[in-house]
Amino acid sequence: MRLTVLAGGVGGSTFIRGLLKARPDAEITVVGNTADDITLFGLRVCPDLDTVMYTLGGGISKERGWGREDETWVIKEELAEYGVEPTWFGLGDRDVATHLVRTQMLDAGYGLTAVTEALCQRWKLPVRLLPMSDDRVETHVVVDDPEQPGKRKAIHFQEYWVRWHAEVTAHQIVAVGQDKAKPAPGVLEAIAEADVVLIPPSNPVVSVGTILGVPGIRDAVRETKAPVIGLSPIIGTGPVRGMADKVLAAVGVASTASAVARFYGSRTTGGVLDGWLIDTSDSIQADSIAGAGIHVQAVPLWMTDETTTAAMADAALNLAEAVRR
Amino acid sequence: MRLTVLAGGVGGSTFIRGLLKARPDAEITVVGNTADDITLFGLRVCPDLDTVMYTLGGGISKERGWGREDETWVIKEELAEYGVEPTWFGLGDRDVATHLVRTQMLDAGYGLTAVTEALCQRWKLPVRLLPMSDDRVETHVVVDDPEQPGKRKAIHFQEYWVRWHAEVTAHQIVAVGQDKAKPAPGVLEAIAEADVVLIPPSNPVVSVGTILGVPGIRDAVRETKAPVIGLSPIIGTGPVRGMADKVLAAVGVASTASAVARFYGSRTTGGVLDGWLIDTSDSIQADSIAGAGIHVQAVPLWMTDETTTAAMADAALNLAEAVRR
Repeated sequence: MRLTVLAGGVGGSTFIRGLLKARPDAEITVVGNTADDITLFGLRVCPDLDTVMYTLGGGISKERGWGREDETWVIKEELAEYGVEPTWFGLGDRDVATHLVRTQMLDAGYGLTAVTEALCQRWKLPVRLLPMSDDRVETHVVVDDPEQPGKRKAIHFQEYWVRWHAEVTAHQIVAVGQDKAKPAPGVLEAIAEADVVLIPPSNPVVSVGTILGVPGIRDAVRETKAPVIGLSPIIGTGPVRGMADKVLAAVGVASTASAVARFYGSRTTGGVLDGWLIDTSDSIQADSIAGAGIHVQAVPLWMTDETTTAAMADAALNLAEAVRR
Repeated sequence: MRLTVLAGGVGGSTFIRGLLKARPDAEITVVGNTADDITLFGLRVCPDLDTVMYTLGGGISKERGWGREDETWVIKEELAEYGVEPTWFGLGDRDVATHLVRTQMLDAGYGLTAVTEALCQRWKLPVRLLPMSDDRVETHVVVDDPEQPGKRKAIHFQEYWVRWHAEVTAHQIVAVGQDKAKPAPGVLEAIAEADVVLIPPSNPVVSVGTILGVPGIRDAVRETKAPVIGLSPIIGTGPVRGMADKVLAAVGVASTASAVARFYGSRTTGGVLDGWLIDTSDSIQADSIAGAGIHVQAVPLWMTDETTTAAMADAALNLAEAVRR
């Protein structure tokens, strides 16, 4: 069984762990978001790809959910001693090694797909991890300037997310470079040839949204013969994890399972979803979602451990079979 | 008193520490060797400049004599896990931070002089440290190929020195890029305007030799009004530290204080030395050196501690006064 997953970082990789438990024999391709990539201290950092890689490779910090287990922070200390900005992004020493290898390979002319494959070899990933694009796409957020009241400015998504904890008002989200980006080698095929396409409970705007926004990818999802099943990243009125509500607000979408389903849209009306899983506590929204032409099912959606997450994955795949045309 | 020192790494910076003790009020400019610089994992590494900076800034590893005190080696471990070559050059984590700052500034278009000044600000150096050149010069060594008997190949000096411990036969030493290099801003002025120019017991070929080899620097040393005094890096038939004998052999110079003095040459006959300090155990060579037109004095030359090194510096400065024209 070939499964293709469009994934952000923490939510995506947590879901994929459950998926691997539910379907250990599946051939899984993960199309990873690269729009929150950033160059820091000359190093090319791919937070979402690395979260998937470290999580599925067994190197993730279990406590933080990002970065490496047994991490040390000597470089960060030293950079601060040199007075080098920014100080708000914490690059651990083990993590820096990954970025050094990546940056050196990119500088040597390898595409991000090839670089990611090389990095993943060390981690013996049980999935194939593809960046959404080899081209540079970077999400910027137009915010109220935290340092000049009354003014707005565009900042990198990481600055918005990590430095300002999404606490400054976001007015607009722009994926710079996206209009000219091409899907990475293998991405369109992985979507076209999948038995099921899955959209995990990742951020619908700055993770899955930026993947779908790469010209060609949304069309591939619309056109694949595979059922496309998503899982709501919103339970009640809040995100399962992270600050998805803030970026949803910036694009005028309410923080509810139903609003996010409508944001993705039904494939019957030009959207990307065949089916949508919502949490049991949100079952009251099922009719509204069904009204938008999306098959819906309510199941427990808290990814509290691998067993509950595997049950979610199982439910998603069962829904896929139910809606398969 | 303005003193200008042409310095390699360990020998040079150890000597400068003694000089600072002997003349705490002197204005010292150090012209550092950059010909053993190397790009590793995309990072620009300047071993000699960093040894001077860390030594005089109080950050050097006292045990190793290079790199940082309290160093950690996480990055090195991780790079090995990724299977990235070379593994023979040990970049410590603290050290990597220095190279990250340097590489980022160089990539942004700053010259090595400006970058070095910026790095040194953190360390509050009691001297002004200038690279010999902002242009890239890299010493390569033609050796018997350690992996293909009967063949020769050119390798970077660091590979010869660090990987092969100078144990492969060196046939030729080439400072690649030197012919087109220009002295860094301030270097010629520091030599012309010095009260004394000092050549510490650094490697005469791959440290001081490469500095003098930058077009314009040797002439500046020949033409300065200041006395130029050197200290022998050879005592008996061996180097004070390091493997200078190996590279001296490659350029056909014997490992003796006298042969090195003649290699530098007297300023009266187109060389760079007015005076030369040799170790007391080598006093028998004094006549031969004097015969080459170089003022010579025998004093204890082992830099066993700061006091003995300060006495050496003092002797060098006294010899400078004695020979001042």
